[in-house]
Amino acid sequence: MIGYRFMGKAHSHAYQDMPFFFHTEHIPVRKVICGRDERALREVADRWGWQEVERDWRNIVDRKDIDLIDVSAPNALHHDIVVAAAATGKHIFCEKPLSTTVTEAEEMVAAVEQAGVVHMIAHHLRKVPALMYARRLIDQGAIGQVLHMRALWTNDMAIDPEYPLLWRFRRDLGGPSGVIGDLHSHCIDLARFLVGEITAVVATADTHIKSRPVPEQSFDRPMGTRGEVTVPDESCFLARFANGATGVFEASWVAAGHKHGQRIEVNGTEGTFLFDFERMNELEVYLRRDPPSTRGFRRIVVTESEHPYISAWWPPGHGITYEHLFIHLVYEFMDALDRGAPPSPNLYDGLIGMRVMAAVESSVEQRGWVRIEP
Amino acid sequence: MIGYRFMGKAHSHAYQDMPFFFHTEHIPVRKVICGRDERALREVADRWGWQEVERDWRNIVDRKDIDLIDVSAPNALHHDIVVAAAATGKHIFCEKPLSTTVTEAEEMVAAVEQAGVVHMIAHHLRKVPALMYARRLIDQGAIGQVLHMRALWTNDMAIDPEYPLLWRFRRDLGGPSGVIGDLHSHCIDLARFLVGEITAVVATADTHIKSRPVPEQSFDRPMGTRGEVTVPDESCFLARFANGATGVFEASWVAAGHKHGQRIEVNGTEGTFLFDFERMNELEVYLRRDPPSTRGFRRIVVTESEHPYISAWWPPGHGITYEHLFIHLVYEFMDALDRGAPPSPNLYDGLIGMRVMAAVESSVEQRGWVRIEP
Amino acid sequence: MIGYRFMGKAHSHAYQDMPFFFHTEHIPVRKVICGRDERALREVADRWGWQEVERDWRNIVDRKDIDLIDVSAPNALHHDIVVAAAATGKHIFCEKPLSTTVTEAEEMVAAVEQAGVVHMIAHHLRKVPALMYARRLIDQGAIGQVLHMRALWTNDMAIDPEYPLLWRFRRDLGGPSGVIGDLHSHCIDLARFLVGEITAVVATADTHIKSRPVPEQSFDRPMGTRGEVTVPDESCFLARFANGATGVFEASWVAAGHKHGQRIEVNGTEGTFLFDFERMNELEVYLRRDPPSTRGFRRIVVTESEHPYISAWWPPGHGITYEHLFIHLVYEFMDALDRGAPPSPNLYDGLIGMRVMAAVESSVEQRGWVRIEP
Amino acid sequence: MIGYRFMGKAHSHAYQDMPFFFHTEHIPVRKVICGRDERALREVADRWGWQEVERDWRNIVDRKDIDLIDVSAPNALHHDIVVAAAATGKHIFCEKPLSTTVTEAEEMVAAVEQAGVVHMIAHHLRKVPALMYARRLIDQGAIGQVLHMRALWTNDMAIDPEYPLLWRFRRDLGGPSGVIGDLHSHCIDLARFLVGEITAVVATADTHIKSRPVPEQSFDRPMGTRGEVTVPDESCFLARFANGATGVFEASWVAAGHKHGQRIEVNGTEGTFLFDFERMNELEVYLRRDPPSTRGFRRIVVTESEHPYISAWWPPGHGITYEHLFIHLVYEFMDALDRGAPPSPNLYDGLIGMRVMAAVESSVEQRGWVRIEP
Repeated sequence: MIGYRFMGKAHSHAYQDMPFFFHTEHIPVRKVICGRDERALREVADRWGWQEVERDWRNIVDRKDIDLIDVSAPNALHHDIVVAAAATGKHIFCEKPLSTTVTEAEEMVAAVEQAGVVHMIAHHLRKVPALMYARRLIDQGAIGQVLHMRALWTNDMAIDPEYPLLWRFRRDLGGPSGVIGDLHSHCIDLARFLVGEITAVVATADTHIKSRPVPEQSFDRPMGTRGEVTVPDESCFLARFANGATGVFEASWVAAGHKHGQRIEVNGTEGTFLFDFERMNELEVYLRRDPPSTRGFRRIVVTESEHPYISAWWPPGHGITYEHLFIHLVYEFMDALDRGAPPSPNLYDGLIGMRVMAAVESSVEQRGWVRIEP
Repeated sequence: MIGYRFMGKAHSHAYQDMPFFFHTEHIPVRKVICGRDERALREVADRWGWQEVERDWRNIVDRKDIDLIDVSAPNALHHDIVVAAAATGKHIFCEKPLSTTVTEAEEMVAAVEQAGVVHMIAHHLRKVPALMYARRLIDQGAIGQVLHMRALWTNDMAIDPEYPLLWRFRRDLGGPSGVIGDLHSHCIDLARFLVGEITAVVATADTHIKSRPVPEQSFDRPMGTRGEVTVPDESCFLARFANGATGVFEASWVAAGHKHGQRIEVNGTEGTFLFDFERMNELEVYLRRDPPSTRGFRRIVVTESEHPYISAWWPPGHGITYEHLFIHLVYEFMDALDRGAPPSPNLYDGLIGMRVMAAVESSVEQRGWVRIEP
Repeated sequence: MIGYRFMGKAHSHAYQDMPFFFHTEHIPVRKVICGRDERALREVADRWGWQEVERDWRNIVDRKDIDLIDVSAPNALHHDIVVAAAATGKHIFCEKPLSTTVTEAEEMVAAVEQAGVVHMIAHHLRKVPALMYARRLIDQGAIGQVLHMRALWTNDMAIDPEYPLLWRFRRDLGGPSGVIGDLHSHCIDLARFLVGEITAVVATADTHIKSRPVPEQSFDRPMGTRGEVTVPDESCFLARFANGATGVFEASWVAAGHKHGQRIEVNGTEGTFLFDFERMNELEVYLRRDPPSTRGFRRIVVTESEHPYISAWWPPGHGITYEHLFIHLVYEFMDALDRGAPPSPNLYDGLIGMRVMAAVESSVEQRGWVRIEP
Repeated sequence: MIGYRFMGKAHSHAYQDMPFFFHTEHIPVRKVICGRDERALREVADRWGWQEVERDWRNIVDRKDIDLIDVSAPNALHHDIVVAAAATGKHIFCEKPLSTTVTEAEEMVAAVEQAGVVHMIAHHLRKVPALMYARRLIDQGAIGQVLHMRALWTNDMAIDPEYPLLWRFRRDLGGPSGVIGDLHSHCIDLARFLVGEITAVVATADTHIKSRPVPEQSFDRPMGTRGEVTVPDESCFLARFANGATGVFEASWVAAGHKHGQRIEVNGTEGTFLFDFERMNELEVYLRRDPPSTRGFRRIVVTESEHPYISAWWPPGHGITYEHLFIHLVYEFMDALDRGAPPSPNLYDGLIGMRVMAAVESSVEQRGWVRIEP
């Protein structure tokens, strides 16, 4: 595993816990964790059960005793790691967004396809039981033909103007996409999962909080001064889907009161469903096929053994949460290795997501609709 | 109409508005309103559309040009008014609780039955469309055999210890029942409406706030001093129903945060429903007959034309509220006069409610279970 | 009053009930109601308390014994009625949308201003206590500077493809705006009330259900055939506000499960509020000024005497609903006459709303952003 | 660890995961797991990371290389295991309920106290961050003096009359307490944690579903026949607390629609809080000290780093769930060993809980109030 921050914690835990709950022939072994700050790395390696630490990712790529590379490093490194690791036949488990440009993403997909390795992108939201169940309802025709989707992901992570000017707020350090790459990326992937391909977008992007204090660790500006925020902290877009549905997307780091404010509504000709990540074990569903006087949004607690993944977990009503989604991803990856079949979502899904995000950014610059070529 | 306070306002408005929304042959005419404070009375008479005012209710009872007496006077007067009015052949529309003792209530029922007049008690909650619809679901067997009911009515009307020592807090002025007569009375009636007769109870009754400042209008104690609260401000009881179901009841004036906190849950062998008066147009219903994976509490917005009374009102989603329940009561009374059939609930329902309340009070004194004889 | 359908019912009731709850010197008298179907008109006139009926609105405009004209007629007639009525010095209470074109709306505003009459537009949502209270919170700075607003109004009125091809689905009969004039119109007005002027929009408009059965009353096509729906049944738009905030708007007649699905979220630098018309007496508010560990969305039941209009109504928790908003409008109009001051919102607000709607329609045609000139 | 069913899974996982998230000097080592069915035992031992398996718990008690015994065996064995293990100086982590009789429980407490070992009872609900935070609010006086508590735990585990006659439905196999020991036990412990000691109770207990099909594994009756359910599937009780507060408790296995339906309300003189286990990361709090017009139940998402335990987990809004509560218990136990201080709750808490449950059962038999002697 390359990377050892927040995502490193979630992935490491998933490698540890997956075999406790699921059966697969392939079992992950936490061989070596890679990062630049050796002291911090050693501490988490012990805690998270990694056998070795390593400072240069290139040393890992060449090792014969390693079959799978987990790419949890900063986005700007994804391309080089994936291309090099695929070349030596390593399977790839890559964090999102796939890369920083569409061209890079295309090269990465080409690399894994040419190498024939198994690859997956860590869009954990696809593995929420309530959303997998929503997809099943759509596939079964329970809500008919989809007409409209709303996908919001707003939080208030950055609403305090005194919150520091971290790398993610600087175009030169974290790329230009800001809240687009951080939050829209997930909702775009879910929209593809639930509704289908997006063909055109028109977007806004705003930087509501325009400057922030320079933090201690920044070396190019005096600490205590304020530096300019050069990426958007809010973005909205309208979308067209290939199947004729319309989409509305919102992403914000400055929406007071929302913590993990991912909320989805999908309207079809025969019904509607609503999802709110802060109540992750619930799906609200309205079905027109119910008798008129008893129609209503039903709050389904998606913790019955009939629901996706739940039989591995706990009794009805006990629920799962954020960290379990990564366990589901790891399970799917191991299961794919067992079966010799490709897991989902994969790097190609990551590439399509990159194209939609690029179109969103382009729409902001061009002040108009932008088509996404298939 | 005898009485002109809060209930007088709700009733007067119902007489005014009923013909706007409903068709009946009998139409209420607001002839004369009766009360002791002539100045206050004149003001509301004009505003509420009454033709005359009167200070002594006995003068009304004898009038030949009056067919119906609305008894919204203080509880202690109900008995004498009803008995006198029935004797001169007046129809009776009486506020709850029916009277202050079971004996009085029995005499009142005897009086109206002997006189053969039409009589109704103003339990407006029976006329909530969501609760009428709940009753219909029970009758249709949608939730199977009822096993359990919880009926809460808690508010924070009196949670401030500086809230004055009004008559309702004094046993000598308002009777001993306090929160029992004020709030349990409604829930007991609803329990009978939805589940059936109560056969035994065991209860608590507490006075959490033991003294309150004497208000200006009190003449028997110096203003500015504090007087003792001599009625309960909270009461809970367990109940047995004739059909084997169990019941849990709570009433409180000191439950912080609740305003019209009337909440009901009924569990049956095939389903459950939940009601919260603060969301009066909604009923939450769980039906076991739904397929397992789509079972959930559905929030039915009870504003469709198929739902009780709604076709007289507004389109779906617009809803009705408190005051409309009195319009429904008046409609039912006029409709009963049209059809020559007795309306529901009537004074006999009021009497049964009195018996259950008496048993609750008796259980507190005796510290044990008390049976209610049928 | 000219018009006697759904809005006629709501307005008539408001004229009847306003004096029961509010004090004003001017009191509405229901003089004459005007419409084309005399039999239907006579029936509602009796029920709704109108003294006379009239078939030609021109006869009313000239009457000396009439001071105020209520324009609840079809939209296409608004312009001619208002211009004629203003010319004879009548005060104007006009339903929304103000007219069918911006040019007409400009002429109407010019007419009432030249005549110096008092005029109001019936945007009843401005008179929801929870939304007036939200506006007060904004004015007090409780949520800081507004950054973003979402205003949804979706219902499922027309989701059934067998729902008939009423005039509102036909561009030739009801104008081209469809769901834009029906639903966006309200949200645009509320956005102006809560956030400020809109300066640019980019929109979609779709007709998801493309044909409907021709109803009996249609005379230009054979009954039993299906005719084309020529107005949008869904529209979304992104907006820019003059103060830098962004806006997201959705309107739909085909969103399964929503009845009066008007939902608003406003995010400011210091807090957020949420409103849902189906729970009209509640406002959810998040305030960053609360201590960190106790921050949360608080569900304020807007029924305390401190809240707007509530002291005229019922005790805490009892609530009001749709019809009361028209009573508030009538009260404001009468109060404006008492004080000689202009009521709000007025025909000028209606005109600005027309300009935004025209920009939305233009954006759909031009497939891009459209600016609204102040 | 003795026992390997549902609780064995939750405990084993907690031993595995605790060191991943928390720092303690003492670290649990999964040495040996004990049960009677060797094949089933071997399978879970591998999956759950236990080094050895053992069929007779007496062999474990004597081992020198074991410091702590986890008692997850059937209730009827708790007493003998704990007494024997304490005698050899083992620390004790015991599942609830503590034992099957008050006398046994007293002997167990005496045994651990005499041995001077560290002991804990696995009341995991005390370790819900939202409830620990609720306790902190009470301690800080945020809701004033507690007046009333309602503690419901209802589910529909056994609502299907075809659900088999497992041991828990048979008095001869699982003891007489049924739903009392299964569900009331938790709520009684929480009541003590949040409000204080219970001094008297009056209770109902019902067996609504009176017979069930005999399952395969039963050997004393022919399979395919129905056997009698001899324990209650529903119980309600009223309680008195030492501090004057009142309590209402409900437990049910036959409440349609509830899965993990544990709901708590506590009313104090200055505020109220509400908790629902199905939304475990939320606490609803009403504070009278808020300004009147902004008072409301605030939904606090208890996932901020200021909230109990959360800093060890994930960012705001991500939440934790059922299994994490056992990790908190294990952390507290190890932390107690580090500090040489007793953990909470311990076996004495288990004993008091037993006394209250015994009083509930006694109240059903005696049909009246029963006092609990301190």
